[in-house]
Amino acid sequence: RTLRIGLISGDGIGKEVIPAGRRILEALPASLGLKFEFVDLKAGWETFQEQGVALPDETVSILKSDCDGALFGAVSSPTTAVKGYSSPIVALRKKLDLYANVRPVKTVVSAPRPIDMVIVRENTEDLYVKEETTRDTPDGKVAEAVKRISQRASSRIATIAGEIALRRQKIRAAGSPSIHKGPLVTVTHKSNVLSQTDGLFRSTAREALAVPRFGEVAVEEQIVDSMVYKLFRQPEAYDVIVAPNLYGDILSDGAAALVGSLGLVPSANVGEGFAIGEPCHGSAPDIQGQGIANPIATLRSAALMLEFLNEEAAAAKIYAAVDANLEEGKLLSPDLGGTAKTEEVVQDILRRL
Amino acid sequence: RTLRIGLISGDGIGKEVIPAGRRILEALPASLGLKFEFVDLKAGWETFQEQGVALPDETVSILKSDCDGALFGAVSSPTTAVKGYSSPIVALRKKLDLYANVRPVKTVVSAPRPIDMVIVRENTEDLYVKEETTRDTPDGKVAEAVKRISQRASSRIATIAGEIALRRQKIRAAGSPSIHKGPLVTVTHKSNVLSQTDGLFRSTAREALAVPRFGEVAVEEQIVDSMVYKLFRQPEAYDVIVAPNLYGDILSDGAAALVGSLGLVPSANVGEGFAIGEPCHGSAPDIQGQGIANPIATLRSAALMLEFLNEEAAAAKIYAAVDANLEEGKLLSPDLGGTAKTEEVVQDILRRL
Ligand SMILES: CC(C)[C@H](C(=O)O)[C@@H](O)C(=O)O
Ligand SMILES: CC(C)[C@H](C(=O)O)[C@@H](O)C(=O)O
Repeated sequence: RTLRIGLISGDGIGKEVIPAGRRILEALPASLGLKFEFVDLKAGWETFQEQGVALPDETVSILKSDCDGALFGAVSSPTTAVKGYSSPIVALRKKLDLYANVRPVKTVVSAPRPIDMVIVRENTEDLYVKEETTRDTPDGKVAEAVKRISQRASSRIATIAGEIALRRQKIRAAGSPSIHKGPLVTVTHKSNVLSQTDGLFRSTAREALAVPRFGEVAVEEQIVDSMVYKLFRQPEAYDVIVAPNLYGDILSDGAAALVGSLGLVPSANVGEGFAIGEPCHGSAPDIQGQGIANPIATLRSAALMLEFLNEEAAAAKIYAAVDANLEEGKLLSPDLGGTAKTEEVVQDILRRL
Repeated sequence: RTLRIGLISGDGIGKEVIPAGRRILEALPASLGLKFEFVDLKAGWETFQEQGVALPDETVSILKSDCDGALFGAVSSPTTAVKGYSSPIVALRKKLDLYANVRPVKTVVSAPRPIDMVIVRENTEDLYVKEETTRDTPDGKVAEAVKRISQRASSRIATIAGEIALRRQKIRAAGSPSIHKGPLVTVTHKSNVLSQTDGLFRSTAREALAVPRFGEVAVEEQIVDSMVYKLFRQPEAYDVIVAPNLYGDILSDGAAALVGSLGLVPSANVGEGFAIGEPCHGSAPDIQGQGIANPIATLRSAALMLEFLNEEAAAAKIYAAVDANLEEGKLLSPDLGGTAKTEEVVQDILRRL
């Protein structure tokens, strides 16, 4: 099977980590029967400055018609609102209907306090519909934004969360060491304040997870503020956390803090038959150009993309190579307290493939 | 001066901790020249079940006409939406225009990694306006909520954040040991996605803090997801964090996790000349009736209320007594790993007053 992969480096360290993602895909053993073709695509702040748009139509149309998946690096945003600029990754998620943002957060098995959770973030609605208005009043400006929660999107995201929980359990059952006994989905919301919107998310997720197919999956709930508290007090208790878009955004950064660096945390933006791997970190202008960005979030994002393209064996190879590098702990990038360059980390992981 | 204080115990452990708050106020040394009168007021889930309203008009009118301040315990909420029930504390904040929710999070000075920050949360708007609608569509239900951000409320909250930063600096300058060099306010928002609403919060806060009075105060910004990440990676870097309502809610629970227990964290709901002290924890039905709730969040909330009623000397006495109990670390409630009962902790702190 040949997979055509779009490569959107974006800005800053995006340009340094996406090439590493490409290299690990190319280095996968031939025995897997996978071939890759790559196409470089534009998006981001530099693109906006060159072309006046942050997400050129060409990028979207090539992804849609020509690609099986993609890797997205990171983009810089202007520090103050700039007319016509809006985040290309948010737009991509919507234009390609990549309705789930999947963010696994995991320590190495030997960590003193092992953590192994995945945050499944709804990726198309909530406050990210970006419908805002501003009016002048005698008391000054008043701005409003719409938070939209639909039964359809809530059901879909809860269903994929349930599926991910089952899949994780299957991998555990196959003998992979784990801190979890059975599959658990924690539904996060703030329905004590937002009884209609978050209430709809909550009840829909509950229903979607109550079907026989998920009989084995335990389901519980956490109010978002208390979820953040628990995330830090008892992170080992969580398996799959499902949340509306904004809470998912916040929770996944919080979870990343638990494993020591955003530079370790991958994500995949997942739709029907399409996935974009995306490291959780940003464009990191402070370290750009120094060749010291941690490539692991991107390597794991490439693996995660493969998982959702049903290439689980290939994904497992990448995960194992990354874990081996971390378990040994000799070649670590500066965000992990090491001194290795991006290139050294990549080479170490490639040789473990 | 005689202060008239409303006591709203609410539900669950609210009933166990609010009496402790009353006792510490009564036990303040006479030399401070403060007298207290107390009035018991109703609100919460039990009240709703008795009277059909969670926040009786009487409670609001007595607070308004008769009280200088109040202590609010905690209320339980129904697990599914119940017609007519809505959170009494959210309603109180709005009805009394308690526009700032101030949440100091602080370790003891000798902690291995000392933290000393205060989260200043806007308390009247954002998604807490609770304007929601639901409609049926061919694809199922769609619910929407309004997120409202006004220039007026944003300016007011940033201004009080600046004042709190100056006040903290004054206390430090008077010789109190501190991890901070100078006053810092960190403005938290998500204006990279919500350019109008959070953009307005951001720009208004910036302006409000740019006046000469705050010349000494350093101002910086964090996007909310990255703020949660930083909160856990470098908590010692933060002094005053100011945020819209919902982010403030989430951040203060996150910060509470850093100091080990929600049972330590106080808050004050502050308006013009009025303040309600409120422990950050909930009604904790799991431990209710066992006499083991940690009273410290309430004792500190009583002190915080006094601070905002301009009784800083009295507040300082309470803080010092609580800190002495924690520094010694012998009589700790179970949430802190100890075995002391609420009553033992209260007595230990009272004798240190
Ligand atoms: C850059 C920003 C728009 C984005 C988001 O909020 O989704 C980022 O924080 C993320 O999590 O991918
Ligand atoms: C109980 C709930 C409505 C409340 C809030 O969200 O404000 C609580 O979480 C708090 O922080 O005081």
